[in-house]
Amino acid sequence: MSIPPSGTQRAVRWYPPAYDIRVETVPIPQILEPDDAIVMIKLAGLCGSDLHIYRGHEDVDADLTCGHELIGEVVALGASFHPGATDRPELYSTLRVGDKVVSPFTVSCGECHFCRIGFTCRCIHSTLFGIPKLPGGQAQYTRIPKAGGTLFSLSALAAQGKVDATSVSDSSLLLLADILPTGIFAALQALQHPKILPVLTGRAYPTSGFIPDSAISGQGATTLQRADRVLTIAVVGLGPVGVCATVSLLDMLATIGVQQGLEYNVVAIDPNESRRRKVEAVYAAIDTTSKGSGSFTVASIDEGKQMVQKNSNGAGANAVLEVVGNNSALKLAYELVRPFGLISSVGVHQEPPIPFTGREVYDKNVSFDFGRCPVRAMFPLALEILLKRQDVFGAVGEEASLVEKIVGFDEAKESYELFDKGECGKVLFNPWL
Amino acid sequence: MSIPPSGTQRAVRWYPPAYDIRVETVPIPQILEPDDAIVMIKLAGLCGSDLHIYRGHEDVDADLTCGHELIGEVVALGASFHPGATDRPELYSTLRVGDKVVSPFTVSCGECHFCRIGFTCRCIHSTLFGIPKLPGGQAQYTRIPKAGGTLFSLSALAAQGKVDATSVSDSSLLLLADILPTGIFAALQALQHPKILPVLTGRAYPTSGFIPDSAISGQGATTLQRADRVLTIAVVGLGPVGVCATVSLLDMLATIGVQQGLEYNVVAIDPNESRRRKVEAVYAAIDTTSKGSGSFTVASIDEGKQMVQKNSNGAGANAVLEVVGNNSALKLAYELVRPFGLISSVGVHQEPPIPFTGREVYDKNVSFDFGRCPVRAMFPLALEILLKRQDVFGAVGEEASLVEKIVGFDEAKESYELFDKGECGKVLFNPWL
Repeated sequence: MSIPPSGTQRAVRWYPPAYDIRVETVPIPQILEPDDAIVMIKLAGLCGSDLHIYRGHEDVDADLTCGHELIGEVVALGASFHPGATDRPELYSTLRVGDKVVSPFTVSCGECHFCRIGFTCRCIHSTLFGIPKLPGGQAQYTRIPKAGGTLFSLSALAAQGKVDATSVSDSSLLLLADILPTGIFAALQALQHPKILPVLTGRAYPTSGFIPDSAISGQGATTLQRADRVLTIAVVGLGPVGVCATVSLLDMLATIGVQQGLEYNVVAIDPNESRRRKVEAVYAAIDTTSKGSGSFTVASIDEGKQMVQKNSNGAGANAVLEVVGNNSALKLAYELVRPFGLISSVGVHQEPPIPFTGREVYDKNVSFDFGRCPVRAMFPLALEILLKRQDVFGAVGEEASLVEKIVGFDEAKESYELFDKGECGKVLFNPWL
Repeated sequence: MSIPPSGTQRAVRWYPPAYDIRVETVPIPQILEPDDAIVMIKLAGLCGSDLHIYRGHEDVDADLTCGHELIGEVVALGASFHPGATDRPELYSTLRVGDKVVSPFTVSCGECHFCRIGFTCRCIHSTLFGIPKLPGGQAQYTRIPKAGGTLFSLSALAAQGKVDATSVSDSSLLLLADILPTGIFAALQALQHPKILPVLTGRAYPTSGFIPDSAISGQGATTLQRADRVLTIAVVGLGPVGVCATVSLLDMLATIGVQQGLEYNVVAIDPNESRRRKVEAVYAAIDTTSKGSGSFTVASIDEGKQMVQKNSNGAGANAVLEVVGNNSALKLAYELVRPFGLISSVGVHQEPPIPFTGREVYDKNVSFDFGRCPVRAMFPLALEILLKRQDVFGAVGEEASLVEKIVGFDEAKESYELFDKGECGKVLFNPWL
């Protein structure tokens, strides 16, 4: 067990009921449990879902240290971390003080059923960073519970000769904490769904790995045509997670296209013009050889509806990635999706009832995947895409950059205000500026 | 083109607004379009979803000939049927007068995108049998539109040496028209879902066919344990479709279990004791060597909740098959399902809004598959299971039989009344008695 610095630190703190951000001096966190690590923060992100608490929508009645996106360096480890801990998740025996680490936005133990099977955001010990009982990353130091399951060590990866991401900027690696994996998750839920499989494979529904090709003639339809293998996907919402979803989707579609001869078209939709301009710049920056055999359109809502109809010969989108988290986005997704299509919804939805009748979902054979990204399980895939797409994720403040600026805590209050009003893009805090 | 009998026939007819069943003499249908066939009905089923019209819940304001489940013999074919029609679905060149055929409950052309890809119930020409514009199967003769795409010919299969189902009883083959494929569809949507895949394969989420095994260490959780590969599935609703879903699910689980070493437990839930007794008798009748490595429980609602908790060590069901079609069944399914679980809903839902808030579906990472079974595309798989499970589907009126009785049209009015009150099981009509 190693000992973190003692004394005080600066942190961005929120006070109820709403809109009250203060930068305060608070104690540096200490090891409380043997599985804890203390991380010195290099960068912490301001995320769209921080705004739910900021606006007072989460019924939180106590003050808290903000933030659930962080990258940093391990400065202290609890007693559980030692070379003999080989019966536990790998990092309990390999994590070292000085390692560069990224954390998902929730704690995951790595040892319960949900962690083992990859649904890490529903770990039985799951806790969100940035709530009263678990101070967040917008500070100089943060305590990470169940750190051998929760953290991802870039230093350990490099030391094992696996992937060396040490030359990648911290502002790029910070995107692993939430928004890039969440975007990938949105795309992956669509591309893995059995209702999309016939388009990807060219074999009609209900083919499946565990159903052998039948000796019985289908005696039914004519065979699939080239037009049946054109995949139309809409992305609804082009905030930072929507950009990550779009970039990841295009990357995966290009891979599948090259492997399997698939054609695709993607329609990225947002009513906000500055967000549309950002996505156009991002697309222009992507190396064209990675785009596969597809088309890409950025559109307002009305333009988007028309493009989806046109691209799909009136059938509608095979899948819609809903990256907003409100009922108007869900309704638009329903309107865009074709019968037997899928809505992959990763927006953080609140209290209102889902805006569909039983008749609507039955009559369109709609499938839905709702919920939070299991970020910890997505890290390996997310790092692959992050390294491939440094053209988008590598820089700060350029036309095609996802991250708009890096500021100190002195600008925290103003940054929350601007971000809340949609007047700035993705902001990161450097707590040492 | 051949010519059907002329003259009149007897048919079961419904009059608005509700509960008004009359057996009437009406004209024998004739070929209206070149793609039509006329089928002489051998048996027609009375289905749970016939009750939506019967009770006046479908806003139908004209009288109609009832029924959407039928098996029969082709007595006339339109001009499209000839040996040279080889550019169209197979049956346009192979179907013959005299063939034994079964029809799905909706028309499907076999030539549009939705048919080619296997989503036949959303054919662009889809029409339900048993509505004012398309007379149903509870008659002596029925007109089948787009018959080369819609029908399934058991005679053609046997003639091609593929599968000879000619010795199977008509009452058994009638189940292919709707309820057996619908039950299979409920089970298949669950077993094909990517959130269930880790349990079936033993590889943690988000593994996928098109994502190569990464060179990057997961660095995360400990490996899957035996307990992670125990699949808990609940069936909510044990009417005739629920019985078909249960039997199909057990059949597929046994196959997967033998292939992949999976353990499973199935909890079949219904508040109605006589339905529970039927399912217990059905299970007892199934050849035990086909059951694989699993357990099976029939339970009331409260018992079912307890069994699912117990069988899953408190996690909840990996998947719930919702075979009822109302909001109390959907709510029960939500309560039973575990985080990252799936609700496969094949019940025919009506106007009420889906009973979940955005927060509920987000917080549990629930996936839903809603909608109608693409029966035409499921025929080959359904026939395989029908032939394997003659112990359940082969007889009439025995303890383990799905079909309770076969009656003539003179008993049609009373049968609707009894079925509406839940006082009888599956009834078939023989229009020639």
